[in-house]
Amino acid sequence: VAETQRIGDYLIQRLQALGVNHVFGVPGDYALGFFDLVENSELQLVNTCDEQGAGFAADAYARLRGLGVVCVTYCVGGLKIANTTAGAFAERSPVVVISGGPGTNERSRDAMLHHMVRTFDTQHLVFQQLTVASTVLSDPDTALLEIDRVLMAALRFKQPVYIELPRDRVLTPARSFHRVWEETDSDPEAVEAAVGEAVERLRGARQPVILAGELLHRFGLQEELFDLLDRTNIPFAATLLSKSVVEEDHPRYLGVYAGGMSRDEVRAYIESSDCLLNLGAQMTDITLGIYTARLTRRNTIIAHPEHVTVGYHRFQDVPLTEFVRGLCGAEIPRRPDDPVPNPVAPAPFDPATGQAVTVQRFFQAINAFIDDRTVVLADPGDALLGGMDLVIGRNQNFISPAYYTSLGFAVPGALGAQCAAPDLRPLVLVGDGAFQMTGVELSTIARYGLNPIVVVLNNRGYGTERPMLDGPFNDVLNWRYSRLPELLGKGVGCEVRTEHELAAALERARADTGTFHLIEVNLDPDDLSPGLRRLTTALAGRIR
Amino acid sequence: VAETQRIGDYLIQRLQALGVNHVFGVPGDYALGFFDLVENSELQLVNTCDEQGAGFAADAYARLRGLGVVCVTYCVGGLKIANTTAGAFAERSPVVVISGGPGTNERSRDAMLHHMVRTFDTQHLVFQQLTVASTVLSDPDTALLEIDRVLMAALRFKQPVYIELPRDRVLTPARSFHRVWEETDSDPEAVEAAVGEAVERLRGARQPVILAGELLHRFGLQEELFDLLDRTNIPFAATLLSKSVVEEDHPRYLGVYAGGMSRDEVRAYIESSDCLLNLGAQMTDITLGIYTARLTRRNTIIAHPEHVTVGYHRFQDVPLTEFVRGLCGAEIPRRPDDPVPNPVAPAPFDPATGQAVTVQRFFQAINAFIDDRTVVLADPGDALLGGMDLVIGRNQNFISPAYYTSLGFAVPGALGAQCAAPDLRPLVLVGDGAFQMTGVELSTIARYGLNPIVVVLNNRGYGTERPMLDGPFNDVLNWRYSRLPELLGKGVGCEVRTEHELAAALERARADTGTFHLIEVNLDPDDLSPGLRRLTTALAGRIR
Repeated sequence: VAETQRIGDYLIQRLQALGVNHVFGVPGDYALGFFDLVENSELQLVNTCDEQGAGFAADAYARLRGLGVVCVTYCVGGLKIANTTAGAFAERSPVVVISGGPGTNERSRDAMLHHMVRTFDTQHLVFQQLTVASTVLSDPDTALLEIDRVLMAALRFKQPVYIELPRDRVLTPARSFHRVWEETDSDPEAVEAAVGEAVERLRGARQPVILAGELLHRFGLQEELFDLLDRTNIPFAATLLSKSVVEEDHPRYLGVYAGGMSRDEVRAYIESSDCLLNLGAQMTDITLGIYTARLTRRNTIIAHPEHVTVGYHRFQDVPLTEFVRGLCGAEIPRRPDDPVPNPVAPAPFDPATGQAVTVQRFFQAINAFIDDRTVVLADPGDALLGGMDLVIGRNQNFISPAYYTSLGFAVPGALGAQCAAPDLRPLVLVGDGAFQMTGVELSTIARYGLNPIVVVLNNRGYGTERPMLDGPFNDVLNWRYSRLPELLGKGVGCEVRTEHELAAALERARADTGTFHLIEVNLDPDDLSPGLRRLTTALAGRIR
Repeated sequence: VAETQRIGDYLIQRLQALGVNHVFGVPGDYALGFFDLVENSELQLVNTCDEQGAGFAADAYARLRGLGVVCVTYCVGGLKIANTTAGAFAERSPVVVISGGPGTNERSRDAMLHHMVRTFDTQHLVFQQLTVASTVLSDPDTALLEIDRVLMAALRFKQPVYIELPRDRVLTPARSFHRVWEETDSDPEAVEAAVGEAVERLRGARQPVILAGELLHRFGLQEELFDLLDRTNIPFAATLLSKSVVEEDHPRYLGVYAGGMSRDEVRAYIESSDCLLNLGAQMTDITLGIYTARLTRRNTIIAHPEHVTVGYHRFQDVPLTEFVRGLCGAEIPRRPDDPVPNPVAPAPFDPATGQAVTVQRFFQAINAFIDDRTVVLADPGDALLGGMDLVIGRNQNFISPAYYTSLGFAVPGALGAQCAAPDLRPLVLVGDGAFQMTGVELSTIARYGLNPIVVVLNNRGYGTERPMLDGPFNDVLNWRYSRLPELLGKGVGCEVRTEHELAAALERARADTGTFHLIEVNLDPDDLSPGLRRLTTALAGRIR
């Protein structure tokens, strides 16, 4: 690296080297210089309507590409993505937050600069709570090292990081030579011991099961997982967070496990296992069906990014990656091809004339509609819980903030997903309440010529909350969602009530790849998916 | 206060006692219990589309009513209003953030609850950076005292506070008796000394001027100011932050002072003063015309919420309130009725047939249109800088986040303003870029039957940034803004290009008080107000 490299150029170059092609954001005066530099680089800038949309888009992008970038101005931009960054932290999505900032020369005064809050540090202090590493690139002597340190942390922990770039540092030459920071922190003997003990358990188990977690995807270990599954023939399940980490038409796949929210036969199979091998499934309340899961630590092996537990033994400094690779290299006898309760395969959807769409039939129609070129983005709520039973035939084609469950993720998420994987067509499943939060980002989708199919499940409010505790606060204004294309001057919208209309609208959307399609599906406000019914019943006792 | 009072009830009761009638927010499972309690109280819940809208609405409400409340769920709600809370901090708007939270019984486990980020404390730690006081109401022994302490801090400092209410504490009886916390912290001798020295200066001054700041409004000192102006006849100016703190048709009013952004004659008068009495005008970069102001500390008296400086003398423990009251009680000779450069009075707007609307003529039309029942909400950008020269005939009828300058304030701000002052009709001036961020909150405005007039100044992007550094990143998709009512199923929209169309649209809106009116005004993207032209020129050298 040449000594005379400018800080902004180096940052752009490192992002490109790490596979990033798009930057999502909204400009502002403290960030204009960097936006200009990005505009004139090979990175594509994607301007969203609001910063929130950029934050969600970068999260979805990171899930598909291994790294995502959101670029904003100081405080009025950055603090708008506190929530999306928190979501990326909770769900381990490596998003790089780049914020412009006041120049270092402006900070020396006891000044009240616009967009400032308490001190010049306020935004940085906030993001220290929401990221795994952060830096303010004030010092040209350390700026390149700091960029490397922070980006490596994003890659190592698969969590968001924060880089604040004072506006007078964008074009500043960095003064010192440096080398790229390398990760370490693994104990080979501990890895060997952990793998050995896990293998011993698996060999002696009557009914071993693998719980394939979202961290396998985050750490890029799907190939290793496929290899392990093929060699051992052990049945496996996913969780709501990891759904589609493996193709769901795999013969040894059980379905989604989520405690009491699961299909009964999946739950029975998993909970009667005498050796549950949890590879990177985080034990969130959602994963555990709001603590309705019946799992014992004694019978469980858990691989975490930094350590492994086998029953009550905890092995420190055993990274997930090395543990999984260790299992792949171990002698584990192949299980027989005994029958396992696979998910119900999707059947062709045969619409009944004049029949109003129910939630259950809606998801049957979607199940029949999706194919390997569809990436499903499910917003939290019944879009997610109903979507649980979709059979996703291609690796990682189901994206949802299933743990952090921040409403409004899916539409901007589709923006990020299609930028990340232009060969896929996003199918967005979003409730009406969530759509009102970020649905206007279809503007950005239209501006950049993308073509997702967006289905608004209109049940007149926050359907997930009604069974817990209902009141007017769960209602939203009943928009004419299908008219949004008229506001934007782009896209195609329609409204459906019957199964026939739904099937026709989906086929029209499939046939027209030139623009986005927005399909409003009218549903009975009291109609819930079975999964949601079980979840909200489980939650109802806890709201107070 | 009875010993058996429930925590949630006490919080509601205190808010009502402090003049709050509305709570803005979006429910979520951690907050449902408190929403239910509010719904069944005399407070009116106002559900916005997104939490961001609720945050901005509560800020505007607080500016008109002295206290505003936004209520959200844990993290996915709360972190969405980090930015709006930061704005309220920067501009001293006393907003109470109430967030639901996980139950205290849920926190004791090493659990990963949905919506959680790093630890259970994450949201609280973030809001400690953005508020002047904060609390988590876990302990029934201290909860009532904590509520009082935090609310008093909001009132004392006129800045936001944070109250996190674990969901299992909403209906918990508070166990201890308590009394309301009282503020202190003023030194009567220091007050007397500061007032004495200031009065001495004013008596000896050749050309004293008062800079009437926004803190006079925040601390409710307008009556005292009027009294001082009437008795002393000293000419006075406002700042961009304090515009309308005094009626702008006052005979001794000079106009808005903002350094190089000011009208020349205002700048000359202020900067040639030998005694500038700054009553609560914060010296932000915006106030100082991005540091183009030529003021000397030697000739300046500055009254701050906690201290006063007279020239180079700083008096600690002299609250703004006591200092202003001290001046009101002092002997200050009355100035003669010498001429001062008043703002240009608004003339009737006489539209020219077929003439395209220019920015300058647009503001002339608005100046002629507004009356004492109009409250103007100006979004940052040319809406604010062009709005600088509007003559606001009634105290506090101009609201803008002029310092923090967060785009997207004005539409949700109108929601808050009209809830706070139902006798006023909001006139929103908002750029197209900002409208795309929060304009859908017209949904909430429609839902609650409010009737603002919203003018979208469509110059095809971020007009304030173009003169600094232009690129495609300053463009936004050109929506058909006037079609938004079709999406919402409410309201009236129209699009205007000529002066005649503008005048007609404004009159139609005035005549129809039954709903909101949305007027899209097409402007030349290169047409800027004189104030903006001066500001962006001053800023252009600093973006890198």
